[in-house]
Parts: sequence; structure tokens; C-alpha cells
Amino acid sequence: MNDAFDFESRFAKGLPVTQPKWSGFAEYNFIGGHNDPESIPVEGLIEATARVLRRRGQTLATYNQDSGPLGDIEMRQFLAGKLAKFRGMSAGENEILVTSGSGQALELINQILCEPGDTVIMEEFTYQGAMNRLRARGVNVIGAKLDNGGLDIDALAVQLDELVKSGTLPKFVYTIPTVQNPTSSVLSVERRRKLLDITGERGIAIVEDECYADLLWDETWPSSMMAMVGSEHVIHVGSFSKYLAPALRLGYLVAPWSVLNQMIACKGGGTGALEQMVVADFMQNQYEAHVNGLKERLKAKRDVLIEALEANFGTAAEFGVPPGGIYLWIKLPPEVDTLQLADAALKQGVAFNPGPQWSVDPDAARSHLRICFANPSEQALRDGVAKLAQICFEETGIPPRSANVSR
Amino acid sequence: MNDAFDFESRFAKGLPVTQPKWSGFAEYNFIGGHNDPESIPVEGLIEATARVLRRRGQTLATYNQDSGPLGDIEMRQFLAGKLAKFRGMSAGENEILVTSGSGQALELINQILCEPGDTVIMEEFTYQGAMNRLRARGVNVIGAKLDNGGLDIDALAVQLDELVKSGTLPKFVYTIPTVQNPTSSVLSVERRRKLLDITGERGIAIVEDECYADLLWDETWPSSMMAMVGSEHVIHVGSFSKYLAPALRLGYLVAPWSVLNQMIACKGGGTGALEQMVVADFMQNQYEAHVNGLKERLKAKRDVLIEALEANFGTAAEFGVPPGGIYLWIKLPPEVDTLQLADAALKQGVAFNPGPQWSVDPDAARSHLRICFANPSEQALRDGVAKLAQICFEETGIPPRSANVSR
Repeated sequence: MNDAFDFESRFAKGLPVTQPKWSGFAEYNFIGGHNDPESIPVEGLIEATARVLRRRGQTLATYNQDSGPLGDIEMRQFLAGKLAKFRGMSAGENEILVTSGSGQALELINQILCEPGDTVIMEEFTYQGAMNRLRARGVNVIGAKLDNGGLDIDALAVQLDELVKSGTLPKFVYTIPTVQNPTSSVLSVERRRKLLDITGERGIAIVEDECYADLLWDETWPSSMMAMVGSEHVIHVGSFSKYLAPALRLGYLVAPWSVLNQMIACKGGGTGALEQMVVADFMQNQYEAHVNGLKERLKAKRDVLIEALEANFGTAAEFGVPPGGIYLWIKLPPEVDTLQLADAALKQGVAFNPGPQWSVDPDAARSHLRICFANPSEQALRDGVAKLAQICFEETGIPPRSANVSR
Repeated sequence: MNDAFDFESRFAKGLPVTQPKWSGFAEYNFIGGHNDPESIPVEGLIEATARVLRRRGQTLATYNQDSGPLGDIEMRQFLAGKLAKFRGMSAGENEILVTSGSGQALELINQILCEPGDTVIMEEFTYQGAMNRLRARGVNVIGAKLDNGGLDIDALAVQLDELVKSGTLPKFVYTIPTVQNPTSSVLSVERRRKLLDITGERGIAIVEDECYADLLWDETWPSSMMAMVGSEHVIHVGSFSKYLAPALRLGYLVAPWSVLNQMIACKGGGTGALEQMVVADFMQNQYEAHVNGLKERLKAKRDVLIEALEANFGTAAEFGVPPGGIYLWIKLPPEVDTLQLADAALKQGVAFNPGPQWSVDPDAARSHLRICFANPSEQALRDGVAKLAQICFEETGIPPRSANVSR
């Protein structure tokens, strides 16, 4: 096949920018939301496949199996039970939509709620994927102040009033209350209560993204906002990417039927049934054992990463100790431009997410970076951080000292 | 959860129309592209899952596994081999994009090539899903004449010249050359050659949808157009929905890298990896045995359907005998309005696709209907067709005689 026919001259206008051809992962792969390979429950998934296909394999012969467009019925039953037990929720099977990753859930929310020129509130540092999707639709994204406890609710209330006064009613507040991405804060029950109230009173919806809520090491986490009284304006989003496997492309959202029905009309072909069936069967049997094992490994990796950062960056790297999740949000001295550092590091096989890409105002995170510790081995975390410190020193003179020895 | 918050008043404008809540399939389910439940290779899929997860299960921990955004590498390797062996093609792994069903493939083609007001040529009777997707984008769909051999190429050449003369260069010709949907014709090699030439000369792309090309009962089928010299303007589409299972949501398209790269940028999260891995492993080992078994069952069902139509509708039902595929396109006498008949039949548990929904000009297929014979049992085909004839008689007086006995 050759390119003799000029398809490109026939492309529609305004298409998204293309990326260079994929050429494999970096040697030290600290970006994105990749997970721990050793925690993929290979044998558990094989057993689940055998069980569920012998029980219901013939349903694969029909579009949407025997379950309709909301998704596999056993998957929705599992989710209803899990969300009740671990997030305090009371969603019925018909209030849950299975999606191809939480990315599709966010896309559907944006599609049915947002038009170009609309305004959405996000945490000042937030998930790049969510921000990019909104901006691609021409939505005006406004950052809200974070502190160590997550969203600063009092500041947000003032901000919302100012917006409303100036004639702008935001479509929704997008928040990651449990293990905030990238700062890892957990919003307290008190703040959740207040956030529900100040948005409800003003008629502003909340999109609560709880993709990381299964990965808190402290077991006494707060319930989801959707579980609380007065949460009729909340849409809840979750995913299997973080507590099972991102390549499966399985996510979900919880919302009233009127919202889900409109999303179904937008969703197109649907989400693969084999994944839904297998994961539902596996999780129904092994959710707790699996998640506990995964969390143990992640916690150990977090500790290795922190140790490596302290050893190699010393006081140059500032960060909080995350109570869960898969990443660390690090602040380097203001001399370091992490966008430049990311380019230099990638050339030497170290990939991380530069702060500006995770920030509504890129300048506000000019010296920040995000390191995902779930995917690399403990040895790769040690070696990669040492290498990153070396590259950073060569590029910026920081960190000036490593393991108490001047370079 | 209740609906106290009025999400609907906040919906974006111009969203697609919603459907009534799904309430299960009709008793006699002759619609859509559902497949034969008995042919789902349950044990084969279980074995493939065990093999592939033990070999590569850990790759699920990364987005797009170890394969990049075009799709699972083993899936693309299987497809390259299969398309070479059975469709005569020479596509490399990097010219194949795995999609969530052929529906997503068509959506991506439309997205990168079409703007509102553009023109696309389709066969006068064609796949509803493809037509609806184009019209939802504001594309002007023009029908091209079909005869028993598929597209009438000479008539199409005249039609294209007239369009070009009037200032309209169609973006592409969408065709289903092998087991045309819904008429079941197979385009000859000679016509494929001519179609390539008349479109290539005029600078018009071809979208060749070969979703049914694996299901021809006669083994000497023509190669795909993309396999032929001078096919640089062809995009090839395929799917596992028809020769394995529609609920898996696995399709693919073949195109030059420049086209695929733009599609990747539009595709979003990607297609589930477990499905890709399992199906690639299964097909690599058992494609021919599986497809041959499926084809045998489908051919038997076709024969049962034809027998039932002849017994119950007599000469009132006109149809060709399909050489493959999963449906029959039936013409009833002009007194019968199949849209009305479909409503009446559905109330009594018989679901079929009325012709107008499968026709660029709805009026041209006012008395046609499409029956998919893959999903119902042979008994359900017999009983459902008898019931349909009875309902049709009650509604329209047709067929006047059944099994040579006046009603």
C-alpha cells in the first residue's frame, strides 16, 4: 500500500493534532496512569472467564447481550453492591452506565451538558485528560483553589458568587475528592457536605470523579458525595483502570435515568461485553482480596519513591505523603522549568508528567511534576529517580546536593 | 436517588433523540445483526483466554498494553495474515487500526473526511447504521443504483459525472461489495475493477465495508478491492461481529498511516484489550474451523427461512437466495407498508427491519423488509414467519393464500 491518494487534502477542518508514531514506553515510565503489572490477577481472570462464559457465553451473540444499552447486567449488579458497601451509595442497576473507561464517561458528560463558551470549574491542579476534553469543546475552564485538604470551599463559594454576579452560571464543578489528581488530597466529610450545599443552592451540578477511591490505604475514608443527602445534582464517575487494569477500558458513571438515557443516545456501539462479564465475575468473588493485595504493593512502591526522592533530591523536592493512589505531586525550586526538564529527561529514557500539563494555569505549576509510581519496579523507581536527579542537576544545577554529597 | 435536580434543562442543544427504555428482545427477533448463539465458541474462548493471559496478561497494566494506539499487536498480526490469505490484501501491522466495532470505524472515517454539506454516495439500499451516522453529521447522502450483481457501475459513472459537472465532488463511495447489506449481492471482480477505476480517475475515495465477507458459502469469492492494483483511494472496513460475536465490539479498518494517525487522534480511550487478546489468540488457532462451523449453521437457517417464507407467503414474498451472510431482503406486494406492518408485528412479538430504514429513499423500499436469520432458532424462524404472515394478512389481506390454502 502506498500513499499515492492524497487523503489528507480531503480531511475535514479542525481535526485534533496528531502525535508522533508510538515507539514504545520510556525505560523509566513514570507518566500516565499505568498500573502494577505484578498485580494483574492472571489466574483469577482466567477462572472468571471460564465461569462466566460457561454460564452466559451465548449472550455474546446479541448486541448488548441480554442486558440492554446500560451495560452487562452482572457488571451493573456488582457495581451497585460495591458502591453501596464501599462508597455508601444507593444506586440501582438502572442508574449505572458502563463506559469504555472513565474517559468515555467524562466525554459523555461534556457532550450532553456543555456547549462552546460554557464554563466549568476544575480544581486548580487537575487531571489533564478531563481538562483537555473540555477545552477541545471550547469550554472555558476556571481553576478553584486547593489546599492540603482539597478544594477550599469558602474560596469556591466566593468565586461562584462572583461568576454568577457577572452572568456566568458554571455548568458543573469537576472534582476528584478522594485522592485528588495530582495532589493526592482527600476531601473531608465536612468539606463534601459544604461543597454539596454551596453548589446545590446555586443550581450548579457536581461531577465527582472517584477513579482512585478504591486505593486509599487508610480504611476509614469518607463516603462519596453522591451517598450524602442533597446530592441530586451529582454525577459520579468511576473506573477499573486504577484498581484492576487500564488496558481493559472499563469505567462507569452513576446518574439519574434521564441523564443516562441521553448518554445512551450519544454513546454509539458500546463497551466490550467480554471485559464486562469477566471483570464482574472476578470482582464479585475477589474484589477485596485483589484490592488489598494491590494496595500493599502500591504502598511499598510509594515508600520506595519517597526514599529515592529524599536520597537524590534532598530538600529540593517538596511533596506531601499520599494516603493512597498511584502518584506523587512534587514541587521543585522555581529555577526548574519542568516542561524543559521533561524533554531533556525523555531523551535519556525518563518519562514524567510536567506540572503545567496538570494545571489550569500552566504557569502556576511551572516547577511541579507528577510521578506515577505504580508501573515501574521498585528498582526502576530507585534508578529512574537517581537518573532524573542527575539530569535535573545537569540542566539546572538542582539538586545541588545528593545524599548529602555535593555533586 | 431522585430526579430533583433538573439536569435536562441544562442539556446542550441538538443532542440525538433518546429511545424508550430497553425492555428485552422480541420473542421472534429478526432484526439487527445478532448472531447464532450456539456458534459462540465458549470452550475455545476459555482456552484462548488461559493461553494469552498466561503469556501476556501483565501487559494489561499499561494503557494500550505493549502495542500502542493502533491496537493489540497480536490482533493486528492475525488480521494482517487473515486479510492476506482470505481477502488477497497486503496490509502491514501499521496499516490496521482496531476499533470498537465497525461502527466506530465508520464513525472515524466520517469524522476525519466529512463536514456538514459534504456528499457521500451509498448503494440505494444500504446499512442503516452507516446512513444514519452520515446524516447525523449533516452529510448529503445520494443513492446509487443496484441490480442483482450489486452496484451498477455504468450508471454510477454517469451519476458521478453529473455531480462533478454540477460542482459536487463526493467525499467517498460507501459500498458493501461482498454480501451487500441488505440485498446480499456479491460484486464481481470485473465490477470491482471498474469501480476502482471510475472513482480513482475522478479522485473520489472508496469505503469498502466487508463485514460479511467471511460468511460466503461459496468458497471462490472475489478478493477485496483493496487487494487490487490501483486501490490507493480505498479504506477497508471489517468486523468480528458477524463471524464471531457482536457483543464483543471488535472491528478494524485498513488505511494508509496518514489516515490512521489522524483517526488515532480522534479515537479517544481505545478498545478493550482483553477482547483483542483473546479473540486474536482464538482466531490464530481456529479461524477456519470456527467460521466453517458457523457458516454451516447459518446456511441451514437460511434454508429454513426460505422454506417458511414460501410456505407462508407463497408468491407474495419475492427474494433472491443469498450466497452468504445472515439476512434476507424481501419484497412484498405494493399494498404492504412495512413500517406499519413492523409496528403491528412488534406488538405481537415479531421484530423485523422495515425496508424504508434500509433505503436512501425510504419510499423506494416501502414494501421491503429485512429478516436476519442468524439469531432465532430454526423453530423460531418457522413459527415467527408463520405468525408474521398471519399478522400481515390481518393488516393488509396479504398473503391471500398460505400453503395453497385460502385463509
